[in-house]
Amino acid sequence: MLGNCINNVRKNVPLVHNITNYVTVNDVANVLLACGGSPIMSDEPEDVSDITSICGGLNINIGTLNKRSIEGMFIAGRRANELNHPVLLDPVGAGASALRTNTAVDLMKEIRFTVIRGNISEIKTLALGSGTTKGVDADVADTVTEETLDQAVTFVKAFAAKMNCIIAITGAIDLVADANTCYVIRNGRPEMGKITGTGCQLSGMMTAFITANPDQQLEAAAAAVCTMGLAGEIGWKNMQPGDGNSTYRNRIIDAIFNMDGQTLNAGAKYEVK
Amino acid sequence: MLGNCINNVRKNVPLVHNITNYVTVNDVANVLLACGGSPIMSDEPEDVSDITSICGGLNINIGTLNKRSIEGMFIAGRRANELNHPVLLDPVGAGASALRTNTAVDLMKEIRFTVIRGNISEIKTLALGSGTTKGVDADVADTVTEETLDQAVTFVKAFAAKMNCIIAITGAIDLVADANTCYVIRNGRPEMGKITGTGCQLSGMMTAFITANPDQQLEAAAAAVCTMGLAGEIGWKNMQPGDGNSTYRNRIIDAIFNMDGQTLNAGAKYEVK
Amino acid sequence: MLGNCINNVRKNVPLVHNITNYVTVNDVANVLLACGGSPIMSDEPEDVSDITSICGGLNINIGTLNKRSIEGMFIAGRRANELNHPVLLDPVGAGASALRTNTAVDLMKEIRFTVIRGNISEIKTLALGSGTTKGVDADVADTVTEETLDQAVTFVKAFAAKMNCIIAITGAIDLVADANTCYVIRNGRPEMGKITGTGCQLSGMMTAFITANPDQQLEAAAAAVCTMGLAGEIGWKNMQPGDGNSTYRNRIIDAIFNMDGQTLNAGAKYEVK
Repeated sequence: MLGNCINNVRKNVPLVHNITNYVTVNDVANVLLACGGSPIMSDEPEDVSDITSICGGLNINIGTLNKRSIEGMFIAGRRANELNHPVLLDPVGAGASALRTNTAVDLMKEIRFTVIRGNISEIKTLALGSGTTKGVDADVADTVTEETLDQAVTFVKAFAAKMNCIIAITGAIDLVADANTCYVIRNGRPEMGKITGTGCQLSGMMTAFITANPDQQLEAAAAAVCTMGLAGEIGWKNMQPGDGNSTYRNRIIDAIFNMDGQTLNAGAKYEVK
Repeated sequence: MLGNCINNVRKNVPLVHNITNYVTVNDVANVLLACGGSPIMSDEPEDVSDITSICGGLNINIGTLNKRSIEGMFIAGRRANELNHPVLLDPVGAGASALRTNTAVDLMKEIRFTVIRGNISEIKTLALGSGTTKGVDADVADTVTEETLDQAVTFVKAFAAKMNCIIAITGAIDLVADANTCYVIRNGRPEMGKITGTGCQLSGMMTAFITANPDQQLEAAAAAVCTMGLAGEIGWKNMQPGDGNSTYRNRIIDAIFNMDGQTLNAGAKYEVK
Repeated sequence: MLGNCINNVRKNVPLVHNITNYVTVNDVANVLLACGGSPIMSDEPEDVSDITSICGGLNINIGTLNKRSIEGMFIAGRRANELNHPVLLDPVGAGASALRTNTAVDLMKEIRFTVIRGNISEIKTLALGSGTTKGVDADVADTVTEETLDQAVTFVKAFAAKMNCIIAITGAIDLVADANTCYVIRNGRPEMGKITGTGCQLSGMMTAFITANPDQQLEAAAAAVCTMGLAGEIGWKNMQPGDGNSTYRNRIIDAIFNMDGQTLNAGAKYEVK
């Protein structure tokens, strides 16, 4: 059951090294604390190896990348691989610029990732070279719908097999798959797209989940997606007249803070394909 | 009517490239989403040209500038000019340091701006070389008051004529002018000065407004100022005992999220001089 | 009385230059505004000297340090020393990486600090070379308890004497000491550890307090600690069912915004040893 995965995060308090963009970094840190993990941020090439070494997992997010932080991503990634730490890649904006696409592709060549998590356009860019990323959001033309679901499940499993890692595609319907098994998840609310960085937050939280659940990483990645989506549903229920996206952001993080295994098991909406 | 301008933002969903400071960047992103736009942030010289190319408008904010991001501002600005995208300059702290003043002045020489938006001390520094910026806030001695209003309107129109762009000076009384027409706006609340970054948020939002309203950019810039000020008034009304500046920040963004053209038309307080 | 110290911040509105990490920088700015100060952030080596010169105090926080910002810390620190401005060091993560430890040690050699504020593991690393920093949090083994209190007071006074500055160690029990006098403070709540950056926020606020109270800097540093802790208590009382760490963050800043000298005097829990 997925609820066990969040309980393990709260029990193990995984320390997660984040190399992440400066737009949403504060929310990533608070979400990591909310779910029971512990965050540390560092992107300086001379600092990252030491920081990765004392952590349990590594979250690499390429939003607002720069030459210095890119170098830090490679150093930290190699160190995490040496230590057999789980490593997550969030290819923010892959497809939107050559630097972002190339950085993500080069990272995938050189670093062994446990999970790659992005929206459908980012993942299609990396898998096929053909996504049509609209800035940092997925293009409508790429969206996974009930009509295209089977095709999308086949695609994500094939990409997971090729990369030999877990692939997580998030959107209205979320897919979390390895080569053989795909969680199809229907938690969440469309209004979450009106908050900056829910994807970045999920990537940070997912790193904590896979770090605290080394023997069930696919389930843990799916549990992180369900936790985020369910928190979006609970947070939305707590909205009052006059509230908007800023309060909604707080409500979602609050709901993660209050999430336990039992609530997650009761609220998770998924099927396995 | 100004209400039409925000309706166009919600209809067109302009993608805005922001090169902005790391202090208030998260709020800038959430305000852009709240008003109906879509944000993307990038400051790496090798990344900015591609990112500007897929966007509709560019917001350059020089707070926490550094050598790398300054280079990015020039590259992105030139690319936006080539593409005829609207470009906004927020000269945060011009007058407070030589690097900030010189960067703003050099940008104004090389990049064609659609709007320059700052507080009165920053704008006086750029126009006259004589503002007395107190850190990132305007100096009291520079403040636009009812007594100095006519003089300030003449000044802002003259500077707009000289720069051949829209000049927006925000403070207790806001002025948004081109060479011939000045909107004098009296929305807002003094308590907004106790929140970091309401100016940066306005600059991001204003870029979305001028991008989504290419045929009425002066009106759109004024509409963005009225939206921010009116949201400050609505947010203040929603404050409860014990609330302070952190909750007020959320309330203002929430009010922008809930703003529509009708509410804006009913609440906007301005005259045209 | 400590209440006088916050009243002086509100009266003098000290402008504080912050070189601080991008994780918690927005909260640092809003806390500085909440307590009555005024924040400005700048880390570019070419910018910092001018910015420090127009400010009253300097806050150096080494979280997410990089080569560029480290250079900025030294330049700003030297300039602040020339101007006799108070300077605070927050050695975030000292002990967690060689770069952080060495940067803090080098800063302590070259810059004259008014206050060094950190958790017990960071301070032990700097004083003894032996702290066991767990990421950016103190290790449980280092924690100051009622049992180890006398020993800790002796330690902090000795380190303050050696460094000839104020040392502030924050945790469940906070210690603020110079060579002769130690404030032992018991405000605060354990849940504050579930919010990212309460330590960074305190460092920013403490810089405002020591800047606005040049003749009673030890009392001012202690008053800042009591203000933060008391705000944590008041914020917690205002929590509603369903609230979590994100709302708690807002509640604490709100409580600082509403804090006055009388409330601080009534709520401060400390003894002087």
